[in-house]
Amino acid sequence: MIETSRRGIDALLRPRSIALVGLPRGFKAGKVFLLGLLDQGFSGPVYPVHPSATEIDGIRTWRRLADVPDPLDMVIVMAPRETVGDILVECGKKKVQVVILYTSGYGETGEEEARREQERLRELAHQGGFRLLGPNCMGVYSPSSGLACFPGMPRQAGPVGFLSQSGSLCNLFTSLCASRGVYFDRVVSYGNGCDLDLPELLQWTAAASGVGVVAVYCEGVRNGRALAEACRNAAQAKPIVFWKAGQTAAGRRAAASHTGSLSGEWRIWEGLFRQCGIQPVQDIEEMFDLVLAFCRVPEGAGCRIAVMSGPGGPAVSAADAVERNGLRMASLSERSLKRLREVLPPTGTSVRNPIDVGLSASFDIRLYLDTLEVISEDPGVDAVVAVGGGATPEISRVYVDGLVRFRQHSGKAVLAIAYPGFLTEKDLLEPLHQADIPVYPTPERALRAYGRVAAYFRVRAQRGGQRWP
Amino acid sequence: MIETSRRGIDALLRPRSIALVGLPRGFKAGKVFLLGLLDQGFSGPVYPVHPSATEIDGIRTWRRLADVPDPLDMVIVMAPRETVGDILVECGKKKVQVVILYTSGYGETGEEEARREQERLRELAHQGGFRLLGPNCMGVYSPSSGLACFPGMPRQAGPVGFLSQSGSLCNLFTSLCASRGVYFDRVVSYGNGCDLDLPELLQWTAAASGVGVVAVYCEGVRNGRALAEACRNAAQAKPIVFWKAGQTAAGRRAAASHTGSLSGEWRIWEGLFRQCGIQPVQDIEEMFDLVLAFCRVPEGAGCRIAVMSGPGGPAVSAADAVERNGLRMASLSERSLKRLREVLPPTGTSVRNPIDVGLSASFDIRLYLDTLEVISEDPGVDAVVAVGGGATPEISRVYVDGLVRFRQHSGKAVLAIAYPGFLTEKDLLEPLHQADIPVYPTPERALRAYGRVAAYFRVRAQRGGQRWP
Repeated sequence: MIETSRRGIDALLRPRSIALVGLPRGFKAGKVFLLGLLDQGFSGPVYPVHPSATEIDGIRTWRRLADVPDPLDMVIVMAPRETVGDILVECGKKKVQVVILYTSGYGETGEEEARREQERLRELAHQGGFRLLGPNCMGVYSPSSGLACFPGMPRQAGPVGFLSQSGSLCNLFTSLCASRGVYFDRVVSYGNGCDLDLPELLQWTAAASGVGVVAVYCEGVRNGRALAEACRNAAQAKPIVFWKAGQTAAGRRAAASHTGSLSGEWRIWEGLFRQCGIQPVQDIEEMFDLVLAFCRVPEGAGCRIAVMSGPGGPAVSAADAVERNGLRMASLSERSLKRLREVLPPTGTSVRNPIDVGLSASFDIRLYLDTLEVISEDPGVDAVVAVGGGATPEISRVYVDGLVRFRQHSGKAVLAIAYPGFLTEKDLLEPLHQADIPVYPTPERALRAYGRVAAYFRVRAQRGGQRWP
Repeated sequence: MIETSRRGIDALLRPRSIALVGLPRGFKAGKVFLLGLLDQGFSGPVYPVHPSATEIDGIRTWRRLADVPDPLDMVIVMAPRETVGDILVECGKKKVQVVILYTSGYGETGEEEARREQERLRELAHQGGFRLLGPNCMGVYSPSSGLACFPGMPRQAGPVGFLSQSGSLCNLFTSLCASRGVYFDRVVSYGNGCDLDLPELLQWTAAASGVGVVAVYCEGVRNGRALAEACRNAAQAKPIVFWKAGQTAAGRRAAASHTGSLSGEWRIWEGLFRQCGIQPVQDIEEMFDLVLAFCRVPEGAGCRIAVMSGPGGPAVSAADAVERNGLRMASLSERSLKRLREVLPPTGTSVRNPIDVGLSASFDIRLYLDTLEVISEDPGVDAVVAVGGGATPEISRVYVDGLVRFRQHSGKAVLAIAYPGFLTEKDLLEPLHQADIPVYPTPERALRAYGRVAAYFRVRAQRGGQRWP
């Protein structure tokens, strides 16, 4: 059984006050922690601690943690390595609940002495009665708690939990997601994971009521058995999208230098994922595509796909992608075919699925809208892939409104494709995000993600609501 | 041997005058041909032909082709199907060189009568002494000839040739490419290909001196033997990137409805591609990635890769991608390692390849630049994958300048990664495009494309300059 001293781990999201030990004076990396909290509007007091400054960026600083006059829940440490031990002892005295250790130079150096030092950090945390995140990590981002570890992270909250051994990835992935209208409940960068490590973080995140899907970037773990158990438990609660880096010999060597991780054999990880119903991914785009689908595809979405496309080429390749991803092209009803023949021009189009509405539809947007209406009433269609847009932004707006209406009234899923050249304006995408319509750059990427999510729902339904055994 | 009546096919790019037969009055699909030519600044006269109008959009129109007082080299026909036969007869009388037939409703309908009608088009072209492109096609885009089939196509020319059975894809793919600084020598949409078909177009394009790489989107061909011969010849001359849609049963049915194509078994195509050294791709992103690499990776680029990254996670997964794509992580020289240890901070970084320059480098951009200098002098490195950027656009600019200098002076290839959150501003990308540095959204996509291009160069070098037998 994994140790879950819940009080400790919950403290990651509930600090009433934060100290920043070692905050740099100039425009340096460590400054991102202060900028992040200011930007996010953290509501409690923030106490910068610096050995010689009296103020930094107009904020009063304290020389030592002990000088801070108020209680401290969270301490973020970016001080030099040789001072960290003493700081952690002070944290214990201040009855701090959680320490985030940005400072690096521990297990990831590969040096025996540094590894021992990392073990000592864990002991100091135990002795001090607080939990430790890191070392070599960026800490926590959670809009609902007012926490951020980089400036510019969105204030809007959403249903995604993200656990990442890489700190920068927290910033990069949230920024990618925000640009597509996907937001986060919590993001935790855990670095070398010497105390709070992936198994515990994973169970905690999957159990959170505000989290609908969990994404993980992981280079390796220290306790394989604990991870396996955590994966099983977490996957029963929520869909898990897992990017395990360090799958090749070259990647494993890189992981060792980055977070001191032992990557383990990829086939063992693969077996674990299969057993638990966890979704492995191999890069940030695949991770995003799948997280987006889990956020936006309605539960139980089926596998009978209608493709509606203005351009004919992408319609053909979408049909290929349907079949490649364990889905199938919906057989439209006789009634649908008849009605489509009535609404679409006789040439330059095709009523057979894929429904090619032709180039004219970019000018006469009614062709898209009438087609959507026909599909919405066809009981043999579970989801529509919509490739298209208008010849002008104004016409495209009518198209987007049509997709939104379809999604709201048909009970079917929609995958909107912002193919290069279509739906390029940000204000065309916003209504789609709002209406829970996932937008992908190509039908291939949309269908790859949708196929996996549909299979996930199918297996879960077969198991009677339980996600995995 | 394929029939190559060169005078005819070259006429696609050299019309001194163009007639547009059936140009619509309102804002309808057929209007794109006129808008395209105006937009591209076609230098010769353009004669709209319309049965009842006297002017369209302020341009004088003629009732019939025969009324046009001047000689005509090219006629673009978007008139109703039932009028096409007569129009083609008139084209013969006017001694037109090439006809582009946008009108659809032929072989792609699957109806026997329409198929026969398509055969008749070919005969009319023969009898009239002109070549016919289409039916069911968008025709030609070539900036150096002032030709375009959609409005808004770039006026800048470049080294890419693109042949597409889908018309819309011509617009969408060129727009995707232009947004990344990749431009075209010629683009031909050939639709049902009843006269000018892929085999002939492919040999012609690959032989063109202005073309450095040929991309193809194809749903099927009528003459498999001719295509095989054309593929062999074309691939000897230039790299060919080939998107064969209709690979699955569902895709084959869709292809039949779209361009009346018989797709053929995918394994036959695959064998042909392997034999000729043609690069198969499966979607527009993969096609773009590979075309970009062929445009920008210097000939003979080797497979020893250095990864330089600010964020640590992408560095680890880049190492995975190196190994997965038939490349290898360069062993840095002792001298390089020693110098990197001197220039990089001792913690939060790694001098072993992947070279993790750490989060600080976003603030202290010198860390990236010094690292590039070390790599540039290491004879064991063929190419560098650079993941990063500055904390502000100004700092990013210095980073970009550093990449450009490296590319110009080191003789090594550079793959710049605009990871989500890095290098987002357009004016940061422009200098990279100018310096022939390919920019990819992720290291995974960059290395997938680079690995294939490096293998292509390797095989070609082994065969003594000849690309394929």
